[in-house]
Amino acid sequence: MAENFADRLLKAIKAKGSPACIGIDPVYSKLPAEISENKELNDATDSEVALDAILEYCRRLLRIVGPLVPAVKINIAFFERYYADGLDAYFDLIQEADRAGLIVIGDCKRGDIGSTAEMYASAMLAEPDFANLEDLTGPDAITVSPYFGLDGLQPFIEVAREEQKGLFVLVRTTNPSAAELQTARLEGGMTVAEFVARQVENWAADPTLVGDSGYSAIGAVVGATATEEIATLRAMMPHCLFLVPGFGAQGGTGSAVTGCFKPDGTGALVTASRSVIYAYDDMKYIERFTSEWEKCIEQACKDFVAEVRNAVPS
Amino acid sequence: MAENFADRLLKAIKAKGSPACIGIDPVYSKLPAEISENKELNDATDSEVALDAILEYCRRLLRIVGPLVPAVKINIAFFERYYADGLDAYFDLIQEADRAGLIVIGDCKRGDIGSTAEMYASAMLAEPDFANLEDLTGPDAITVSPYFGLDGLQPFIEVAREEQKGLFVLVRTTNPSAAELQTARLEGGMTVAEFVARQVENWAADPTLVGDSGYSAIGAVVGATATEEIATLRAMMPHCLFLVPGFGAQGGTGSAVTGCFKPDGTGALVTASRSVIYAYDDMKYIERFTSEWEKCIEQACKDFVAEVRNAVPS
Repeated sequence: MAENFADRLLKAIKAKGSPACIGIDPVYSKLPAEISENKELNDATDSEVALDAILEYCRRLLRIVGPLVPAVKINIAFFERYYADGLDAYFDLIQEADRAGLIVIGDCKRGDIGSTAEMYASAMLAEPDFANLEDLTGPDAITVSPYFGLDGLQPFIEVAREEQKGLFVLVRTTNPSAAELQTARLEGGMTVAEFVARQVENWAADPTLVGDSGYSAIGAVVGATATEEIATLRAMMPHCLFLVPGFGAQGGTGSAVTGCFKPDGTGALVTASRSVIYAYDDMKYIERFTSEWEKCIEQACKDFVAEVRNAVPS
Repeated sequence: MAENFADRLLKAIKAKGSPACIGIDPVYSKLPAEISENKELNDATDSEVALDAILEYCRRLLRIVGPLVPAVKINIAFFERYYADGLDAYFDLIQEADRAGLIVIGDCKRGDIGSTAEMYASAMLAEPDFANLEDLTGPDAITVSPYFGLDGLQPFIEVAREEQKGLFVLVRTTNPSAAELQTARLEGGMTVAEFVARQVENWAADPTLVGDSGYSAIGAVVGATATEEIATLRAMMPHCLFLVPGFGAQGGTGSAVTGCFKPDGTGALVTASRSVIYAYDDMKYIERFTSEWEKCIEQACKDFVAEVRNAVPS
């Protein structure tokens, strides 16, 4: 893994032809009937049974989307829900996605001060350094929270630098209440999100983190729902790749997404989760494939990949 | 657990005579020689061996501080460092502290949007709802991040309300860089931390969350290093108990801590971690107890309890 994270991600995007990323947020109650009604997997009250069902679903999901997209984002919360076994499953899935040649983003939104941040950086981003855990694989990048300022992120940045991994710092999120804090305006006119963006760009521009592509191993999470703010944020963070959630189920639109890219068509990785991974609940796909849930997902993934490709400036 | 979290915490404080909380952030390399040089526990390169050593240390630590303080704060990052086994150890320790009659705060600083926040709230705060995990105990309260706004916290608030648990929302942290974002000034003159404080008070004042004591199940993390800001934050959040880190190793002072309380002596729980849990590395205690590490911790805990008691207005 001797290559800068941003360069690796951009190559993977080029190889697959679309900066599209599938978010994996699996919920037991939404699993396809074929899995959740399987006799051996049909018990939501037993964490091990439910987790086995989720893993079965995720593995089949990876086989479908693996050839179509450059990257997946795995949301750790949906695995922590199953305690220690869930954390094992999260790392198993990272490994499977890695073996499938995918760039893997661990969506864990960690952040804390000094020594605690060091622990999170070791736990969540670094390759495991224990002799007995040599089979374990860490993700290529993770999401982190900026509320603590630079020294809260420093340990994550060190790991990113030393192990050629990546970070996506939360700048502007997609939820309805995000605006409460993130669009509050500071003296001098900048919003809180812009203030954070300026800091993120400062950290990202460090030459030891910038790859041949001109992009840094430090990127930013910028939700595609905030159309009017995107142009400003894109201009403020020239070294940052944007991880852009909010396409599909969260209501992001093509034009907002387009603004996350530079005119040369680089600069963002767009994610969709529910609209793809639960496509078998979507009338549009049910009408075509009835209960063939894997075909629904495959078609939804292809549609999403094409939609993202169309949103890229050319 | 039918009583409001704030009321339970205040009773525990009264029973122990001091609003002092021990932070448990165990690091293998800092363990007492008696444990780390024990033949069976002496291998930092094996995660299971290292974790066994840490658990042995934490159990003995709980036995020492349990009778002296009302609450402990267990930092999950130091356990996640050991992957799934570490998460098991974290929950084991919560259970042991709970059995010792301590209020247990899980220091996990989670925060995310809608469905992810729901998962974190189930995983980190709620009592486990799986039939096969009925032995597992959740903490009494956790720390959470405010960057996502109210809808990011709503699922945690629901669990707190339904299960009589507590939340401490990060408002002002103690690290050097915290000031970058948290003391940035908004149009109208409020700092970002004050803006967050106003929101937290709004959420906390909900009558369904306020106990007989007048305090809410929603409190705030307010670092004791920010002396000049404390009076403002205390006045802004009358319904909130403050969880106050930064005493001891992080350089917090008695006068800053005093400002976290109301004149009646209620309103804050003060935490110390390294200055107590590694007291056997502190000359002051080594001179008195040489290598008797448990006596060093016991004395440091007693000193801390007295110091906090002295900082409470009376």
